[in-house]
Amino acid sequence: MAQIIYRQRIEALRGLMRERGWDAVIFGGSDPHASEYPAPRWKQVEWLTGFTGEAGDVVVTMDHAGLWTDTRYFIQANKQLAGTGAVLHKTRVPEQVLIPEWLSQSSCPANAGHLPTVAVDGLCQSVGFIDEIRAAFDGCVKIVSEPDLLDALWSDRPAIPREPVYALPDEVTGESRAQKLAWLRGVMAERHCDAILLTALDEIAWLLNVRGGDVAYNPVVISYLLVTREKAFWYILKDDFYAGSGKVYHEVANEGVITCLYDDVGTVLSKLGQMGVHRIGMDPSTLNYHLRSMVEPEVDVVYGPSPVALRKAVKNAVEIDGMVRWHVEDGVAMEKYLYWLEQNLGQTDEHTAADRLQAFRAEIDGYRGDSFETISAWGPGAALPHYVTPKEHAPKIEARGLYLVDSGGQFFGGTTDITRTVPCGPCTELEREDYTLVLKGHIALSMAVFPAGTPGCRVDALAREPLWRYKRNFGHGTGHGVGSFLGVHEGPQDIRQNLNPQPLVPGMVVSIEPGIYREGQHGVRHENLVVVRELETNEFGTWLGFEPLTLCHYDTSILVRNLLNGEEMDWLNAYNERVYQTLAPRLPVDMAAWLREKTKPI
Amino acid sequence: MAQIIYRQRIEALRGLMRERGWDAVIFGGSDPHASEYPAPRWKQVEWLTGFTGEAGDVVVTMDHAGLWTDTRYFIQANKQLAGTGAVLHKTRVPEQVLIPEWLSQSSCPANAGHLPTVAVDGLCQSVGFIDEIRAAFDGCVKIVSEPDLLDALWSDRPAIPREPVYALPDEVTGESRAQKLAWLRGVMAERHCDAILLTALDEIAWLLNVRGGDVAYNPVVISYLLVTREKAFWYILKDDFYAGSGKVYHEVANEGVITCLYDDVGTVLSKLGQMGVHRIGMDPSTLNYHLRSMVEPEVDVVYGPSPVALRKAVKNAVEIDGMVRWHVEDGVAMEKYLYWLEQNLGQTDEHTAADRLQAFRAEIDGYRGDSFETISAWGPGAALPHYVTPKEHAPKIEARGLYLVDSGGQFFGGTTDITRTVPCGPCTELEREDYTLVLKGHIALSMAVFPAGTPGCRVDALAREPLWRYKRNFGHGTGHGVGSFLGVHEGPQDIRQNLNPQPLVPGMVVSIEPGIYREGQHGVRHENLVVVRELETNEFGTWLGFEPLTLCHYDTSILVRNLLNGEEMDWLNAYNERVYQTLAPRLPVDMAAWLREKTKPI
Repeated sequence: MAQIIYRQRIEALRGLMRERGWDAVIFGGSDPHASEYPAPRWKQVEWLTGFTGEAGDVVVTMDHAGLWTDTRYFIQANKQLAGTGAVLHKTRVPEQVLIPEWLSQSSCPANAGHLPTVAVDGLCQSVGFIDEIRAAFDGCVKIVSEPDLLDALWSDRPAIPREPVYALPDEVTGESRAQKLAWLRGVMAERHCDAILLTALDEIAWLLNVRGGDVAYNPVVISYLLVTREKAFWYILKDDFYAGSGKVYHEVANEGVITCLYDDVGTVLSKLGQMGVHRIGMDPSTLNYHLRSMVEPEVDVVYGPSPVALRKAVKNAVEIDGMVRWHVEDGVAMEKYLYWLEQNLGQTDEHTAADRLQAFRAEIDGYRGDSFETISAWGPGAALPHYVTPKEHAPKIEARGLYLVDSGGQFFGGTTDITRTVPCGPCTELEREDYTLVLKGHIALSMAVFPAGTPGCRVDALAREPLWRYKRNFGHGTGHGVGSFLGVHEGPQDIRQNLNPQPLVPGMVVSIEPGIYREGQHGVRHENLVVVRELETNEFGTWLGFEPLTLCHYDTSILVRNLLNGEEMDWLNAYNERVYQTLAPRLPVDMAAWLREKTKPI
Repeated sequence: MAQIIYRQRIEALRGLMRERGWDAVIFGGSDPHASEYPAPRWKQVEWLTGFTGEAGDVVVTMDHAGLWTDTRYFIQANKQLAGTGAVLHKTRVPEQVLIPEWLSQSSCPANAGHLPTVAVDGLCQSVGFIDEIRAAFDGCVKIVSEPDLLDALWSDRPAIPREPVYALPDEVTGESRAQKLAWLRGVMAERHCDAILLTALDEIAWLLNVRGGDVAYNPVVISYLLVTREKAFWYILKDDFYAGSGKVYHEVANEGVITCLYDDVGTVLSKLGQMGVHRIGMDPSTLNYHLRSMVEPEVDVVYGPSPVALRKAVKNAVEIDGMVRWHVEDGVAMEKYLYWLEQNLGQTDEHTAADRLQAFRAEIDGYRGDSFETISAWGPGAALPHYVTPKEHAPKIEARGLYLVDSGGQFFGGTTDITRTVPCGPCTELEREDYTLVLKGHIALSMAVFPAGTPGCRVDALAREPLWRYKRNFGHGTGHGVGSFLGVHEGPQDIRQNLNPQPLVPGMVVSIEPGIYREGQHGVRHENLVVVRELETNEFGTWLGFEPLTLCHYDTSILVRNLLNGEEMDWLNAYNERVYQTLAPRLPVDMAAWLREKTKPI
């Protein structure tokens, strides 16, 4: 069995630990930039344990190997870890014991005559996490940070990606690089900082108006950016730059952005004083521990959320226009796909269908790949919110029950993310009810009006109450921010249970995606992207609302009519009509006629 | 003009400041126990400035006197401060500069060759507030704490109240003093504390199953309680105890509660070590600075929310039965009042009406006074959420428009708080709309079902969205906790904008009281108390909901019917029917017939 490989790798790591005198080693699931989707090089957790979930951290001690992951991945983790010697530690459950606490309580020998020694790949651990470890040990722990420590065991470890970089024109970004740099320097001045170090890849891409292809689904460039009062230093790892070529480097140089070697960022942090930088802003949520340790001690480090995150989340008029435009294109691809699907029910499988959907998107001029891995799931598969469609032996899409497809594209100036749940034929009463209640929740939040200053967590319940009333719920967030030709998940705003105080601001793009999942039976999710719009100011304040960006009809055939009130029907009919009016002219005649049927008022 | 008195008092204080070398003096609006309603002795802000609002802090320096208060009291403060020399500093506005910041920036002379000296009556300032002052000055400030410093100027200052104390039987409290003490000692053990000091008056009353009458509207006993592993020490100021009599002191002694002199609490805190107390829990939100300063330095003080607050908020079955029972009695009084009011529209005034309401409540055997000062407001008066009905020249209740009455009673085993908005005759379209929309909000939250673990801030929007949809809102919270024959406002839960993470727990009592206020025109508020109930556990979790405690009909005569959906009408009809069925048998025949009319289904 294949799991033996992972057992051997964990043992090999223990050999290294013995050699170096480490009591425990921790691997996080991310890269040096705290990216949501790390490049293969940084899939250390997967290499070590075989676990392929998107979130997971591993701790190895001499007598224990554990994987910490959340509710989404319990089933998958138990399956993938079987036989590896590593065991699952559950997070996001009431009884959770997180890594710092677990390590301090049960793992490290207190009686060995030395401080417990915990080794990490400091490149892939955030500053905050190391602080938590220290706190759990009340400071009585030795942290060893060894960048790329797995290199010693992982002989064919992939290299850091070096995909080409390209610049976006101002007509796509709506704001020039010079304007963005000037704004950031204004923030620096307010915060009395001589410099800000940007470590999050999407923030760097946004600020410099560049894109790349280093990370799956995210058109970003692996790099760091140090912005000082006069200059900016962009640390990258690109062959064309190393070869002394590359148009984009000249372009950024016009704004005083000096391109540097990726590996030199540590060196410069150790010599900030020489550059006149005595006070520097850093975001601990994306700053890695290794980089932090390189900063010369004389420099005053100001921790705080990067100002770029919020600014980037609030789209300008050009970016919103881009989102609107690409959502029309995306809607055409989606309708073509749903039309095709209806012809092929019972005759295709989940994976073939997902490929087909990608092909429809790929017909769009300006398509730059998917924005995440498509979830194409019929019946019980759809009951897993984070289902991964198998490449081989994918389940058939049968001509009954519900099929769920969650997908999105990256376009030159826009990002999409849409989920539709498709009735494939006869549905059970429960399927119809769940389908209808989730749509009620989707509509309730889509119609919401709320005062300026309201954070997403305060409107989250509006999407849930129609489900709650029937004692049904879903375990994931209701909505996440979406970048503009950037990450399909971005902060700082969201719409979920956690009490995130970030208000929803006009220009932000978020998803609205309630669901219901019944293990072994079916899953329902209805997702549109919406943009926050200012509606009006009156004596009670300034009022905001959501405007749907996503254009693709909601199937009305299985709705339980008496669960919907008049307002909800009006919203649904108006939305479907708008979908028809916008997309029909761009569809072949037969599809347009089909869409007319699909969108007729209920 | 009367304001000259306050000008003179402020000047007299400056004389004292000169004498003692103080640069600034701060007075808070509370008592040594951080009570919401302080006894007259501690109305220092009112004595000094004439401001009678329920929330306000004063700072006096040599060249400035300022009152800090929030949006609720701006109009009142400007009126009452005119001519006193003190000026309003606004809080809860975006541009607010709070006292610590203001003091550190603009008030104290930095060039006088000594540290700025800020004096406080340490008895009436919380530990947390003094920390904020120090932080604002970066530690470069001298804090002088002088208990009762106003005594030197305030010759006829009222004494600390010494109202009689009485014990509640277990049939009313549902849990014996011994059980409560045992539970608290269990918590102490978990927290590795040798003792806990209780400073909040309602917590002490709850723990000891005693009540008193020291504070208006709150049946509490001014005292401190020190609970150790074996004993408890109750510091009180009662004549019967000082005289060696008083049945209650013997009763509590049975559970090892030793009654002590109020003034001795400081002494004992300075000798905790002798008592075997090396680690003590204290709640910084109700602990005063003076008391904290008395704790001997060797003792480890563990700060944290008092465990009593949450335990007290979750009512046991006996307490809930009491609340249910007293709400029936209160409902009878309310219906008698509304019946009387209808006969007297156009012929009575707000103050006479409030007296009349109190008289109806006073007819109830077991009534122990009101739970707060009745708001009795017709027309424009009701537009002020915290309107104080004038005792003289009170406005007439006219036979048109809306009248709002917010009132409640204390009963031997229950506390009530109810608001009804009464159509007095012809109403404008706007009055009818506002009345209907607020009722929609009230109903939406009353009907809400939500999963266990949900904090109030996550369901607050359910009461607001029906208003928000029409771009209307209200500036106060939607709901507050209510004590059981204790404070009408209690924590730790609430339902409001602030992101308070405290979940709503079965057994908690909260108000649901949305409103709409239009300055110079009218105000609407509909308020019931409800108890959180567990409904069901299923595959999606455990489900909670609200059950109304308040019983008093909602007038349906001016509802804008087409703003209500079927579910809302069903709720309203069922609620009004329940009111009729429960109360009619207890009302005189003519009133019962009247109530039948008022509660007929729409």
